Amino acid sequence: MSAIVEPVARLIEAFGRLPGVGPKTAQRLTYHILRAADAEARSLAAALVAVRDEVVFCESCFNISTGPLCPICLDPDRDEKWLCVVEEPLDVLALERTGAFRGRYHVLHGAISPMDGIGPDRLRVRELLEVCARRCAEGDPITEVILATNPTLEGEATAMYLAERLAADVASITRIARGIPVGGDLEYADEVTLVRALQGRREVESSLPR
Amino acid sequence: MSAIVEPVARLIEAFGRLPGVGPKTAQRLTYHILRAADAEARSLAAALVAVRDEVVFCESCFNISTGPLCPICLDPDRDEKWLCVVEEPLDVLALERTGAFRGRYHVLHGAISPMDGIGPDRLRVRELLEVCARRCAEGDPITEVILATNPTLEGEATAMYLAERLAADVASITRIARGIPVGGDLEYADEVTLVRALQGRREVESSLPR
Repeated sequence: MSAIVEPVARLIEAFGRLPGVGPKTAQRLTYHILRAADAEARSLAAALVAVRDEVVFCESCFNISTGPLCPICLDPDRDEKWLCVVEEPLDVLALERTGAFRGRYHVLHGAISPMDGIGPDRLRVRELLEVCARRCAEGDPITEVILATNPTLEGEATAMYLAERLAADVASITRIARGIPVGGDLEYADEVTLVRALQGRREVESSLPR
Repeated sequence: MSAIVEPVARLIEAFGRLPGVGPKTAQRLTYHILRAADAEARSLAAALVAVRDEVVFCESCFNISTGPLCPICLDPDRDEKWLCVVEEPLDVLALERTGAFRGRYHVLHGAISPMDGIGPDRLRVRELLEVCARRCAEGDPITEVILATNPTLEGEATAMYLAERLAADVASITRIARGIPVGGDLEYADEVTLVRALQGRREVESSLPR
């Protein structure tokens, strides 16, 4: 006989399937739910179901969306000639928070990783190549593709692969800068980042008129 | 215009209300749910609702239960004369895993903490005192109450308070041992724990016949 009743065991198990949630955390979350306000538990349950029922991927950029096209693809103020390629919808969110990019996105939903058996066919790569080729053929080419995959082994491999495949259809293919993060410390930066920071060095622009 | 669609924002917010889940973790959990198998998301939602609908607190010991009495209180093999007082249902679980205790429990649902404005009236203290007094009056007294509240300031205060209030009705009131945890290191133990370990020292029992 177990000291733990079945619905509680089930919730602990369900929480435990979430990434980064171990058995102890799953227990703590479950007991929080047991003692929390009823509305809190039910709103979490409703939000879970709503996300699965209402959220789809944008047919154009594969970002998350509630309709066939996401708010960014529907926005006429966005510059169609500027395309930013990212791995995950979370990356779109991070870039949007900066407000520094006013073009469109393309979400790959992962990165090429031969070690994990993830090739370009498992990602939204075909769709990206198609849209660039079609726009080029229609005489309305995308002028710049920014490859904003993560600066990891997989992200770099994906960027290199895409740069090669897109070369014929896109005039400018760029990669986001890799270097010392703002607020970071040179002393603690790893060698690869330091090499990138040196390679990516730029002329200092004087704020004073020359 | 936000880059994030409403159902997703709502789920991020709902996850963010869980203890120990910050905004970044809430985002990661939400995107996991978006990409997980449909059954996984729905089973978590169902488990949340089930816990709120089906789980109550045992009328006798205030442990979690699906009926008026929890499985432990219903178990005739449990020794009624032996009562273990704990702060939380999770503590019952931890003790049950040991299999070393075959009595009944009483869950206080917290500890006395004047700093947080939590007095005995906010806990299941009255019910504990009542059951001990009633059993004593009925001539079927509880012979031992083990105070297994946490060895924290609040847990110790609660144990001392209960020991005083139960003295008249219970023959033996004990406190769980505090000392160096098994696998621990004397060198790194704090002074209070070391003092407790010394105070709680016991005669070594030889495994050889004398």
